[in-house]
Amino acid sequence: MGDQNLSRLVSPRSVAVLGASDNPQSIGGRAVRNLLEFSAYAGGVYLVNPAREIVAGRRSWPDIESLPEIPDLVVVAVPAAAAVAALERCGQLGVRFAVLFTSGFGEGGGEGREYADRLLKIVESTGMRILGPNCPGLCNINQRIGFTFSPSFRNDLSAGPVGLATQGGGLGRNIMQSMDRGVGIGLWASTGNELDLQVADFIHYMAGKEDIRVIVALLEGIKDGPRFMRAARYAARIGKPVVAFKLGHSDYGRRAAQSHTASLTGSADINSAVFRQLGVVEVDDIDELIDTAWLLSRGLPNQMKPKIAVYCSSGGTAALAADAIGLAGIELAQFSAPTSEILGCNLPAYAAIANPVDTTTAVLKDMSIIDRTLIAVCNDPEVSLVLYPMALDYGDVTEATVRSIIKVNSESRVPIIPVWMSDRQGPGYQLLAASGLPPIRSIGKAVKAIKRWIDYGSWQKEGKREFMPKMLSAPEFVIEDAPSVMGEFQAKRWLRHSGIEIPRCEIAASPEAAISIASKLGYPVVAKVVGEDILHKSDVGGVRLGLASDCDLENAWNEIHANVQSSLPETHIDGILIEAMAPSGGLEMLIGLSRDPVMGLIITCGLGGVYVEVFKDVSRRMLPVDYEQASAMLKELRCYPLLTGMRGQPRRDIAALCHLLVKVSDFAVEHLNSLSEMDLNPVWVGREGQGAYPLDAVIVGWGLDARAAPLACRDGEN
Amino acid sequence: MGDQNLSRLVSPRSVAVLGASDNPQSIGGRAVRNLLEFSAYAGGVYLVNPAREIVAGRRSWPDIESLPEIPDLVVVAVPAAAAVAALERCGQLGVRFAVLFTSGFGEGGGEGREYADRLLKIVESTGMRILGPNCPGLCNINQRIGFTFSPSFRNDLSAGPVGLATQGGGLGRNIMQSMDRGVGIGLWASTGNELDLQVADFIHYMAGKEDIRVIVALLEGIKDGPRFMRAARYAARIGKPVVAFKLGHSDYGRRAAQSHTASLTGSADINSAVFRQLGVVEVDDIDELIDTAWLLSRGLPNQMKPKIAVYCSSGGTAALAADAIGLAGIELAQFSAPTSEILGCNLPAYAAIANPVDTTTAVLKDMSIIDRTLIAVCNDPEVSLVLYPMALDYGDVTEATVRSIIKVNSESRVPIIPVWMSDRQGPGYQLLAASGLPPIRSIGKAVKAIKRWIDYGSWQKEGKREFMPKMLSAPEFVIEDAPSVMGEFQAKRWLRHSGIEIPRCEIAASPEAAISIASKLGYPVVAKVVGEDILHKSDVGGVRLGLASDCDLENAWNEIHANVQSSLPETHIDGILIEAMAPSGGLEMLIGLSRDPVMGLIITCGLGGVYVEVFKDVSRRMLPVDYEQASAMLKELRCYPLLTGMRGQPRRDIAALCHLLVKVSDFAVEHLNSLSEMDLNPVWVGREGQGAYPLDAVIVGWGLDARAAPLACRDGEN
Repeated sequence: MGDQNLSRLVSPRSVAVLGASDNPQSIGGRAVRNLLEFSAYAGGVYLVNPAREIVAGRRSWPDIESLPEIPDLVVVAVPAAAAVAALERCGQLGVRFAVLFTSGFGEGGGEGREYADRLLKIVESTGMRILGPNCPGLCNINQRIGFTFSPSFRNDLSAGPVGLATQGGGLGRNIMQSMDRGVGIGLWASTGNELDLQVADFIHYMAGKEDIRVIVALLEGIKDGPRFMRAARYAARIGKPVVAFKLGHSDYGRRAAQSHTASLTGSADINSAVFRQLGVVEVDDIDELIDTAWLLSRGLPNQMKPKIAVYCSSGGTAALAADAIGLAGIELAQFSAPTSEILGCNLPAYAAIANPVDTTTAVLKDMSIIDRTLIAVCNDPEVSLVLYPMALDYGDVTEATVRSIIKVNSESRVPIIPVWMSDRQGPGYQLLAASGLPPIRSIGKAVKAIKRWIDYGSWQKEGKREFMPKMLSAPEFVIEDAPSVMGEFQAKRWLRHSGIEIPRCEIAASPEAAISIASKLGYPVVAKVVGEDILHKSDVGGVRLGLASDCDLENAWNEIHANVQSSLPETHIDGILIEAMAPSGGLEMLIGLSRDPVMGLIITCGLGGVYVEVFKDVSRRMLPVDYEQASAMLKELRCYPLLTGMRGQPRRDIAALCHLLVKVSDFAVEHLNSLSEMDLNPVWVGREGQGAYPLDAVIVGWGLDARAAPLACRDGEN
Repeated sequence: MGDQNLSRLVSPRSVAVLGASDNPQSIGGRAVRNLLEFSAYAGGVYLVNPAREIVAGRRSWPDIESLPEIPDLVVVAVPAAAAVAALERCGQLGVRFAVLFTSGFGEGGGEGREYADRLLKIVESTGMRILGPNCPGLCNINQRIGFTFSPSFRNDLSAGPVGLATQGGGLGRNIMQSMDRGVGIGLWASTGNELDLQVADFIHYMAGKEDIRVIVALLEGIKDGPRFMRAARYAARIGKPVVAFKLGHSDYGRRAAQSHTASLTGSADINSAVFRQLGVVEVDDIDELIDTAWLLSRGLPNQMKPKIAVYCSSGGTAALAADAIGLAGIELAQFSAPTSEILGCNLPAYAAIANPVDTTTAVLKDMSIIDRTLIAVCNDPEVSLVLYPMALDYGDVTEATVRSIIKVNSESRVPIIPVWMSDRQGPGYQLLAASGLPPIRSIGKAVKAIKRWIDYGSWQKEGKREFMPKMLSAPEFVIEDAPSVMGEFQAKRWLRHSGIEIPRCEIAASPEAAISIASKLGYPVVAKVVGEDILHKSDVGGVRLGLASDCDLENAWNEIHANVQSSLPETHIDGILIEAMAPSGGLEMLIGLSRDPVMGLIITCGLGGVYVEVFKDVSRRMLPVDYEQASAMLKELRCYPLLTGMRGQPRRDIAALCHLLVKVSDFAVEHLNSLSEMDLNPVWVGREGQGAYPLDAVIVGWGLDARAAPLACRDGEN
């Protein structure tokens, strides 16, 4: 199912409509009308309806077998049972694609599930690809072809460079209606239940199409993580931006998405980390998809630190825009002397001629001022983009302003981004929409879009280098068994066996043995309870630090036994782990692995100890990570200054921490199918040259007993 | 200037227009037209123009002295010099209010500054109040009276319960144009340069007006902090919500605002903290003002944890809304059995009848389903508000949906909040606007507004109790001199003198003295360099901790001297502070004071040590704070779980920390006019019963030498 050549689905040489009808309210009737009346389709159309001789004034065919040719595509508007039977025959005949509007395939369970299984069998055995079921179909706007029953098809026909793939139809149509703001959308596929074709497949397909410059994806869930990753990587290689919004940031959202399209949604944090790594531009709300995509579609040059200009005719608006820009960490350009001179000559003395430019309402009297000054701002060598917010709609005057914007934009080396802030949408707004300069609706949204454009540029320059040579982190198998937990001692020995340095340690079965071990390690030591059922050692008083003498150690032995027995009376204590204590003054970080149901095994690094739960300051990557990626992970952390040293704090052994991350990554790759989770917290990070190593470790996974056995503790093996 | 009775400004019995003109393009001509043609003003109107006998078909008067009565208000549309002269005469004659459109009063410096001073003198000597200069005036929409030259006045005449005060005219007009979305705005004052009347004065005035239910304030800066605080407190006491957006979150924004209206903007963080404490509802972008204000204007009951319902006809939209709601930490209602039964009976089997409700497109065929099921959702006892997002515009069908929404809303106990997500604004949108149910434009913005409504309710139940009995934190004087800095030793002694416990300490002038002091304090001790020029002791290697013996201490003495002399060769070392060392394992917090140029002295508490700069986890209050407020400050911190104890960490002495906060507040109140900043960082917080005290202290202020002198170190005074 790796073939992403969907050309004959998007632009088939011929198509048959099963369930073609004259009833304008029926699904089949609407589909026929959209194809015959509102499309400009030049291929062969076969209407199939065994109960009619004529449909829509054309010959109606009784079944697929009687057609004079095998169509590339069948569009299916018949109930589930009939649809399955017909598609089985289509598959056998060699039809390549089907668009299946029909619902009732497993969203509600029962026989729908059985139908869905039969459809999957068709896909597997014949190679026919199915779009749907439970979807409004496909709109190939750039060729004006609609394989859809949507009554809105006729209204949303503005061709353009944006490619759109969504699961649901309602939100997809919401995006299509941004055409009223001047956006052009070349292709929209709604994948519905994603029984076969997924949003990922259309990302893959559109990445290779010249008429699509930016891909917009709206995801309720991701059915197949690896497939999505491959598609995103393919688009990234070609250099085509993918802008995505994925539901499932909260439990409410995950539950609702699951009940709508039965989509599995993994962790939102992990999803965002994967998106970021793959260069997928993630947005926070559906309206931001188009704002961002349209900006990216304008083909701006990639610059590392682009600077922008603000130009408007209201001081408050200039201040509002400057404020939002500063807050987003974006830089305003500093105008060169020639720019300032042109602004100074043409604008009144009380205007603001530095960036942001406030022309004041002087332009209301002489609109030609805009033509002369706006182009100067566009031509300034430091300016990469001009934001033009319009706070209010003056009617005619604003329309004239818009004419200037359109004219200057067409002459300008850099794009002008108009922002229409008013709820009044008079002729100026309509003119922007008609001229292919869709306005953004608020300064906040505009600045967010600009920030994403800048971040995407940085990713192209820097993040892209981080690209994984292989795709290892996707789950390659379905996990049925519950994983088991490997406690600290076993986990540490396995890590050490795999070349990851841990503090020297040994299990003691008696106070005497503990003292003997401590004398080998040298005081101070740490004592930690070991027991199969004891997961949170600290919580039950099972840990004692900084033991400096035989006496301390003996007391600790007794306290730990007393504490654990009082907290967990039923538990068995296997012994006490005696460990060399890390020098004081180390920084506590953490390194973790977690298995996302969609994205697979992910590595995490962050501030450890108790702070992880308070500040959640972590960065994540797909596997594997190399030294450079490990270094980039650390730089993303808010706590990075604690590693580099600040306010009299020492610089930490960052190199050792990076090496440890790489070793953990290697370990994870080696045991990819055994690991579910791993938690090294805290990871002690010393001063430069002192190293970095885990002080605690828990591993969760499958078949761990077998791995641990040969590493079981042998006396004196330290 | 404390009199906020602006009735005769907003609704004068008579008004004179200075600079009345027949030229429809002039400021005076537009003002006359707005008043005579587009207003429904019943009071006396006197047009004043010495060059004309007739203006706008009425008698024109040569000057203010010749009028048959003294008008309540003069509207001034003449250039600056003439305006000042006329206003001086108006003030002497007893005119109570002036609206001054004219620019050129000090925005550009020069003689404008002089004019401004003369205006201020009029205000002071005659009591006449001035709106402006440099403003578009005042629109009393509820009585349909415009004292404004704006050509848009005639288009923005939808009366309503929102009161609006802005500085600038452009952004104010932007908000006025939300009338096109169905919003009604009763009064708009644009205060321009705020030479006399400020946004705060209109907040104060509108708080007392029955026809205004919610006040919207847009601030480029706040000229007079105490005046703003008094106005906000007055509104809070009356129970009238104030929704505010203040520029100045970034340096760019502060600079641009300053150049526009010469507004001083203090720290955005401090501003937000003051807003929160006063119950002012702060928003993040201008469009959120109206979304939030309109929701608050609907007079929803205050509930501590209101639960909401989502109702729509698209599964993706339902999931999107549920996701945003979950992410905002808002609760979805759980429907009672009767609600579920009605939904189950009326909706198809494949609909989602739990919250969020997805009717599916079944409603397209039978719109009466909405009437029957939406009212059931509204009537559910757990539901406080129903969010109705509409993803797309189906034309007629959507218009019919809107009819249902309007009908059910009128019958419902709880409000329905429509969200119009599409860029297509067909008849359904227009119908919502016309029916006084202004739609919000995205789910994200709607959820933000709902969150603010919930937060405002919580504040009314809880935050309001925190109200200060007195207003102490506002700056009572203009500070001209630069403040001086008091180092750790002097600062600590002053604090101790004021009843704030600090670790025992003494300055040593020689290694022998240090050892003698340490023997009194008991090891371990801390050694810190003392020197007037040495502000960042750690940065220059001037601090040694955990000195456990005479030998350690002597080494530390030498190291500190060597370090400091190598870092700061020119500096003088006054001695070494020897201090009892706090027990290990304490949590490092901070307590600070800072003087905001607008809001005055503010107290801050947060996670201290190196973490403050990394995570900026702090909470702030105006002075004074009592024990309950101190406790609330701690609960706001993200790091609060570190105080209450988590993951085997001990519970900290929260009571001692609260007491310390109260003592610092008392100290600040006592020395209000001397203090500019104070930094207690770290504040050591022990386990329960161990106390909390500052380990380091810096005080910045005025006249500190005099305060410190009597507390200078005397040998053996510990």
